Amino acid sequence: MYKDIKDKLLYNVDILEKALSDIFEYNDTDCRAIIEAQKYALLNGGKRIRGFLVMQFCRAFNGDENSALPYACAIEMIHASSLVHDDLPCMDNDDWRRGKPSTHKVFGEAIALLSGDALMVKAFETVNNNNRLTAKSNARAFSVLARSTGDLGMLGGQTMDIFAAKKELDLDSLVRLYTMKTGKLISASAKLGCIASGVLENDDRYKAAVKYAENVGLAFQIIDDILDYRDGKSELNSFLAHLSIDDAKSKAEELTRSGIEAIAPYDDGTLSSLAEYLITRNY
Amino acid sequence: MYKDIKDKLLYNVDILEKALSDIFEYNDTDCRAIIEAQKYALLNGGKRIRGFLVMQFCRAFNGDENSALPYACAIEMIHASSLVHDDLPCMDNDDWRRGKPSTHKVFGEAIALLSGDALMVKAFETVNNNNRLTAKSNARAFSVLARSTGDLGMLGGQTMDIFAAKKELDLDSLVRLYTMKTGKLISASAKLGCIASGVLENDDRYKAAVKYAENVGLAFQIIDDILDYRDGKSELNSFLAHLSIDDAKSKAEELTRSGIEAIAPYDDGTLSSLAEYLITRNY
Repeated sequence: MYKDIKDKLLYNVDILEKALSDIFEYNDTDCRAIIEAQKYALLNGGKRIRGFLVMQFCRAFNGDENSALPYACAIEMIHASSLVHDDLPCMDNDDWRRGKPSTHKVFGEAIALLSGDALMVKAFETVNNNNRLTAKSNARAFSVLARSTGDLGMLGGQTMDIFAAKKELDLDSLVRLYTMKTGKLISASAKLGCIASGVLENDDRYKAAVKYAENVGLAFQIIDDILDYRDGKSELNSFLAHLSIDDAKSKAEELTRSGIEAIAPYDDGTLSSLAEYLITRNY
Repeated sequence: MYKDIKDKLLYNVDILEKALSDIFEYNDTDCRAIIEAQKYALLNGGKRIRGFLVMQFCRAFNGDENSALPYACAIEMIHASSLVHDDLPCMDNDDWRRGKPSTHKVFGEAIALLSGDALMVKAFETVNNNNRLTAKSNARAFSVLARSTGDLGMLGGQTMDIFAAKKELDLDSLVRLYTMKTGKLISASAKLGCIASGVLENDDRYKAAVKYAENVGLAFQIIDDILDYRDGKSELNSFLAHLSIDDAKSKAEELTRSGIEAIAPYDDGTLSSLAEYLITRNY
């Protein structure tokens, strides 16, 4: 089963990598640095889980996956933008990202900052330019993406994270932090897949997709905390400040089960395999 | 005449300040810092020239100014976002902005960075949420705003600026730098006003608006260089590296005249007064 979902992820990575490269099929001598920095940050061999979710939900609801592709690219660009800014010295100060020097180590901090901004602009532009769907669909997708990214979404979660470095959070606040910081983009991925296939907010399928994504997103984060703990990274705020490893694992499994259950009526097995794959990964 | 245009600008500042405040009429305890930082950066008593242009072009072409208001807010938010990021230590490292400590001096660099990102998201969201116009109009406005902001627009101009700090540019490259760094948002303002009033790209009025904005934008920048020179700020790249003060002034006047001429058939005098006001200001 894991071989199968890994193959599906890889197949999807190929499609996305091609589409993302195509978006950057232009050049400009004066602005070369900001274009190259965006490509460096974006085309870096990630697993593209978010993009995969957009595509897979569209497939699950019998949409045309080509309609979902620009939305999938957009969410990967928002994610890449956030990583570039997150790695900057004034944020997490990370010199490395996926085994390569982070963007600011290669291009300098100023160009890294601007390229993160530009990736965000390009993400929204890519949603807006999706000419396989109507302006109304794109506006819907746009709303979802903006709310999930903005000050009450991912960026709000990053804000909470900065303050959380200084004080211990209770479990509810920690769940909210994770829900915003990483969960909202994962839920947005499911929602964008729905919108691309014409499934709208009041539809039971939409609700099932959101439930799946919320649960899987939180389970993913719990597993991250367990892996960090095993790597010896002690964080002030982690699920392991509140739960034993075994209890944390059970919690992640329970969330995964409940997510799989929600989506079962519409799933050909791909989404359930993905959910299980994500909590059994060990890197 | 100047009293008149100043009054019009002030009247418009009031409308915009109210609309921008209204956008931030929400709160969230966990995300308070990023919300407050955005408000601090945005509601700061600027002249709102860009927002004024959006509103005034909409009025000039008999549009409903309320339709233009969200677009005007959006362009002011993009502008504010760029200033927050521009002031950061890894960029211009400016501790002051309009006589107040810059955003990162008050909220710290990390929150300033995130609030700049959030302002950009909110800008695009505000265009998308303009419910007085169709999704198609908003998509058009969005395209204009994204292209003017992105890696071949304002952000590209900021990239050029970073490299220009190290080498002297010829006059053509300097004009391109200014056109991108500040000119594109000024032209975008004119275009957004057109779109809000239903005037589209192939219309002569649209072309006149763009010509006005391009000329006035460049004249504005030349005057900036002259004022900086008088303040004793010697920049490696400035119009004054290529032209005498008198020639630079003549160039600014010539651009202004030509901009006023382009828009004359549609102007009640407001846009011409604004253009003249902008090149006679001495601050």
